[in-house]
This record gives sequence, C-alpha cells and structure tokens, in this order.
Amino acid sequence: MAEFDLIDRIRRRIPARADVALGIGDDAALLQVPAGRQLVVCADTLNEGIHFPAGTAAADIGWKALAVNLSDLAAMGAEPAWCTLSLSLPAPDVAWLDAFLDGFLELAALHRVALVGGDTTRGPLSVSVTAHGFVEPGRALLRGGAGVGEDIWVSGTLGDAAAALALLEQGAPDALRQRLDRPTPRVELGRALAGIATAAVDVSDGLLADLAHVCRASGVGAEVELDRLPASAALRDAVGPEQRRAFQAAGGDDYELCFTAPVERARRIEGAAAVSGVAVARIGRTVGGSHVVMRDGGGRPWAPDKTGYEHFG
Amino acid sequence: MAEFDLIDRIRRRIPARADVALGIGDDAALLQVPAGRQLVVCADTLNEGIHFPAGTAAADIGWKALAVNLSDLAAMGAEPAWCTLSLSLPAPDVAWLDAFLDGFLELAALHRVALVGGDTTRGPLSVSVTAHGFVEPGRALLRGGAGVGEDIWVSGTLGDAAAALALLEQGAPDALRQRLDRPTPRVELGRALAGIATAAVDVSDGLLADLAHVCRASGVGAEVELDRLPASAALRDAVGPEQRRAFQAAGGDDYELCFTAPVERARRIEGAAAVSGVAVARIGRTVGGSHVVMRDGGGRPWAPDKTGYEHFG
Repeated sequence: MAEFDLIDRIRRRIPARADVALGIGDDAALLQVPAGRQLVVCADTLNEGIHFPAGTAAADIGWKALAVNLSDLAAMGAEPAWCTLSLSLPAPDVAWLDAFLDGFLELAALHRVALVGGDTTRGPLSVSVTAHGFVEPGRALLRGGAGVGEDIWVSGTLGDAAAALALLEQGAPDALRQRLDRPTPRVELGRALAGIATAAVDVSDGLLADLAHVCRASGVGAEVELDRLPASAALRDAVGPEQRRAFQAAGGDDYELCFTAPVERARRIEGAAAVSGVAVARIGRTVGGSHVVMRDGGGRPWAPDKTGYEHFG
Repeated sequence: MAEFDLIDRIRRRIPARADVALGIGDDAALLQVPAGRQLVVCADTLNEGIHFPAGTAAADIGWKALAVNLSDLAAMGAEPAWCTLSLSLPAPDVAWLDAFLDGFLELAALHRVALVGGDTTRGPLSVSVTAHGFVEPGRALLRGGAGVGEDIWVSGTLGDAAAALALLEQGAPDALRQRLDRPTPRVELGRALAGIATAAVDVSDGLLADLAHVCRASGVGAEVELDRLPASAALRDAVGPEQRRAFQAAGGDDYELCFTAPVERARRIEGAAAVSGVAVARIGRTVGGSHVVMRDGGGRPWAPDKTGYEHFG
C-alpha cells in the first residue's frame, strides 16, 4: 500500500469547510483566515510509550493527538479551524488507520476542525499534529498577563489521567482511563474566557509545572490551597488522599485550563463556565514573588514527590 | 534536561518577523496573515533510516527537514513565512540539537522563515515540520491546471540525490552527497512561475511518480523525452548512462520543480528561470489520455525498473 492510497483513504472522510480553498491532495493546502483575525498555531507530537501506553486503542490515539492540540488552542482562547497530521506507522495497517481516523475525526467534527494536509510515512508509531485557529487581536489568553492579587482558577477535575496511568497494570477504573485516553479540550471555555481571564495555560505537564509557567511569564508568585483542587468521584474512590493530592497537583495529562482573573470578575468567570458546560474552581491567589506554594488544610506548605512531567525528565 | 531548556535554547536563536505577534514560548503562536493573501500550509516528516541515512550529520538533517517543506511551498508558488518544528530525540543531546539548528536556521534565514512553535519530546529520531506561506488568491500553482499540448518543464538537474543514496556505502562524490543532504528548495522559481505555469509539483518521489500526479489531477497524459532530462556533470561522471537515466526518471529526493505551461509562454518561463538563478529544461509535452510515457532517443518507449519511491513500497 502506497502513501497515496492512505491519503485518499483519509481524504474521503474529511468534511468540507468554506474557508478551505484547497485541502488534502496537492503540495499544500490553501486557506482563508477571516479578515480581522489573528492566526493561532500550535504543534504537539504523541509518541508510543511516552505520551500513550503501548497497546492504546488506535481510535483513542487519534482522539488524543488532536485533543492535546485543541487544548493548546483553548488555552489561547482561540476558535479552532484546521489541522495537519503527520503520521508515522511501522507498517501500512488499514484497519488501524481507519480506527485511528474514527477517533481523530470524531473529535474534529465536534469542533468543526478540517484536516487539510500532512503526510503518512514509515517509522516508529508517532503522531504529529499542527492545529490552527483564530482569535480577535488583543483577546488571546497569554501566559504573561496575570497580576498580583488575582484569583487562580482551574476547570474540571485534576489527577484522573495520572491515576489511570499509575493504575494501568492493575486495571484502572473506566472513568479514569477515559480521562487518560480521551481528554476533553476545553475549547468553549477558552473562547468564553477570552477578554475576561488575564492569563491561561492548559494543564498538560501537571498543575504545579504549568502554573509555574504562568507565574514566570507574568512575574508573580502563587499560593494554592490543596483542599480546593477539584477531584472526581472516581479518583476519590480509586486512591487514598495523599496519592490523590499528588496526582492532582503534579500528575499531568489533565488538559484542563488553569487561568487567572481579578477577584471582581468571579461572577463573569462562573458565567463563562456555565455557558461552556464545565465546572470551574477557585484554587488560590497570585502573590508577589515568583514561587508557587501549595498549602494543606492547616496552612502548612505542601509539596508532592514529583513536580510535573518532563519530557526528558 | 527538560523540554523547556531545549525550547529556550531554540528560542534564543530565532530572529524576529513583524508578522509574528507571539512566537515560541506560549501555548501557541499568534500570527498575522497579510490582507488579501491566502494562507498556504504543508507538513512533511523525516524519519531516520527512511528519509535520511542513519549517521547523517545533524546540521544536514535540520536543513533537509525545512527544505522538503519549503519545496512544497515552492511548488504552490507561495512566499514562505513561518514554520513549526516537532522534534523527537532518543535523548536530550545539546550538541546534536545545536548542530541541527545550525542547518535548520541557516536555510530559514535564507528565506526569512520564522520558527514560531512546536515541541521537543523523547522518541526515535523524527522531525516533523509544518510550513506556512502566502499566495495571492487565484495565483497558486496547483497540480490540476495542465491542458493538453503544453510544454513540460523541470528545473535544475535530476537524479543526483538518488545516485548519492545508491553510492552511499562506497562513498558518493561530494557534489552528489550535497544534493541528497542539502536539497535546494526552488522558492524563487516557484514565486516567479505563479501566474505563468499552469500546473506544478515538486519532484520528491521521482519525476515519473510526481508527473503522474499532475497528469491525474489535470486529466492529461504526458510524453517525456528521456534525452532531455537534465543531468549534472557529477552524475554523468559517477554512473553509466542506463543507471543515470533510472535515477533521473525515478530516483526521487530531487526537490526540483516540474511544471507545465502553454508553448507560447516559453520565453516567460525562461525569464522566470533567469530571474531565479536556476536553469530549466523543456522535457516533453502534455497529450491526451492519462499515461506518462518516456521515449528514448530512437522514439521507443522506455521505463525504469522502478517507478518512484513509495513510503510504504
């Protein structure tokens, strides 16, 4: 099977978008960015054994490869539009490709994202996606916009994916495994927060690590109350409180949004969350300095054993 | 060494571009497409052992990873602007990364391309690049625009890279090895051909295979005169005539442009080539039907043993 057959197989499954003048099948795609919008571009790769366990279902790999990129667009407050896909496969396995596309295109359809190009090639299993979206100039959510004395918020719940990974061999509960394999990019929330939140990041490497990026870029510190970190019922059922806290604070792969806003915008934040159908929780406050400090229920500083996933850790 | 140190190392070496509102270092880049331009996007991956020989110098891998993408933009007649880079490395080797960037950024600087994002992660050596450019609406060079009775042209010379690969173990001549490791994307020529050529493709999989894409997309056939295929002096010196012809017709990795134009535009084509500083050669004519036929000096049909590189061949 040649590359061109695989590409035809992909092309037949892509729905049209009016702003795609030319999609898959030429040397490049021709696209129209709406007048008065900035283009937002991000790129993220998933490698087997690093970003997903060997043996992960092809459909879940497809979903997750797009989800982690849409999560980056969400963290910018952008509206997703297009993506490219570079897929390296050890062998041309049509059944695997079809299942991969099932997951990839299911998520793409939810957000009306068009796959406009890319390549398929031989190599160890690796999925590189570049995602494109739009934002009104001046409304993008940057990491560097937080001021001192603002609320720190997080969406959804934290720690589920990390718990699923830790419990993988003994069989993680389905609700946790679902969070690891099919993360939900908070696209609608990101859009709703544009113009309200002062800074945002998506939680991919662990809350502490990603919040530290916001603090560094903004020139602020952070105090986070450990007991305010949102946890799912599935996580509470699956592990004890100390382990749960470590997963929530430093686990990674959550793909929730962590963001800041002045205290007086709390009701607007809650309104944005309600419109988006996702819960948000105030977990702390920005402060002077440059450190992220977590405090337990007694006000004592607390740190997990591990402060976030590092790709070359 | 963490991903963030590698990213900082990359970021410090990127020159500014006025249309990059936000480059490397946030969740995504913010970019401004010029008013009245279409966005042109392509993506291509290089994997070790598939797209370059194991042991290729890091700087050459960096150059080639960008070159193959700029070649796709050239084949659209686009002006390059930005790229993202997803780099998978077996281990965080700073010396390797610096050398890789030497090659990547040397070519980027030649075309004023800004690296605006991407990721570095652990995995088998793999380089995925997505390149972005601009084109005036209606002026992009597509594969499907060729009519019957037009000239078929090719830039530069063919077969050098394939010969270098075939001669690798016995030590290919430097001039050939350079064509394999540091292909020259024909960006200026592609720009100059926009509005003159009727169809174009870059020769990455071999002339016969890539010209067949043009024929299929355009609904035409092609007759190519084998003796008109341009060859370098280094190729003529290195191999005999039959092997040379096979490399020229079906070798791949040339990154020349193959394009079509009405006969009466020959002088404009030659003018575009002169302005771009690259030679072009008329190698045949489009005809009715759907087949690509090559003819030798006696007018007899000729076929190489192999009709082009297939990534899963």
